[in-house]
Amino acid sequence: MEEAARFYEKILGLSLEELEVMEGMDTTLGFFSVGESNIELVERTKEETGQAKFLANWGPGIHHICLEVDDIGAELKSYKERGARLIDETSRMKVGFIHPQAAGGILIELCALPKEDR
Amino acid sequence: MEEAARFYEKILGLSLEELEVMEGMDTTLGFFSVGESNIELVERTKEETGQAKFLANWGPGIHHICLEVDDIGAELKSYKERGARLIDETSRMKVGFIHPQAAGGILIELCALPKEDR
Repeated sequence: MEEAARFYEKILGLSLEELEVMEGMDTTLGFFSVGESNIELVERTKEETGQAKFLANWGPGIHHICLEVDDIGAELKSYKERGARLIDETSRMKVGFIHPQAAGGILIELCALPKEDR
Repeated sequence: MEEAARFYEKILGLSLEELEVMEGMDTTLGFFSVGESNIELVERTKEETGQAKFLANWGPGIHHICLEVDDIGAELKSYKERGARLIDETSRMKVGFIHPQAAGGILIELCALPKEDR
């Protein structure tokens, strides 16, 4: 995280909006804003997670795209009705994933829009 | 392109802003707007390009992140001065790439901001 964040902050000049240490999950998140979007850096140390396996198999790289939505449950339901393959049929911890096979090879996460931004 | 675009348009409900057929380059680009950003789908048929090799080696997936800038030449110069490894030291066709080794494994493209948006 420290090394990658240095690049995004000092060289690209993006501002680090938030650094979130998720205790117990051995995860650190860093958010850099670009217009209305964010580049989210994820540092994983636990071995069992999907993201740790991705790192072990492929090395650091782009993992997924996240879209903010008002109501994850409703969105997942409507995507399923329209025939999309989902990883999560209901949301877990305010996120839900669409299977990359549905999205041209791209893993898409939905996350709850923070209340203050609705 | 057609199959992937169907997902982004019909299932996710994103609007296709622009479909650009680049004659002679055997490339089709589809832009879907998400806030101030775009998801850009790239269809490649020529075998010699970096993106065609990426497709052949890894299959469809996320290829790079593109950041719009006012002056690519000046940005590339300042990144180099600050120690970033570049693929392009000067811009080519209004784009320039930063080496993934500089950016935590992520291939970053700079592209010229369209004049009307400056």
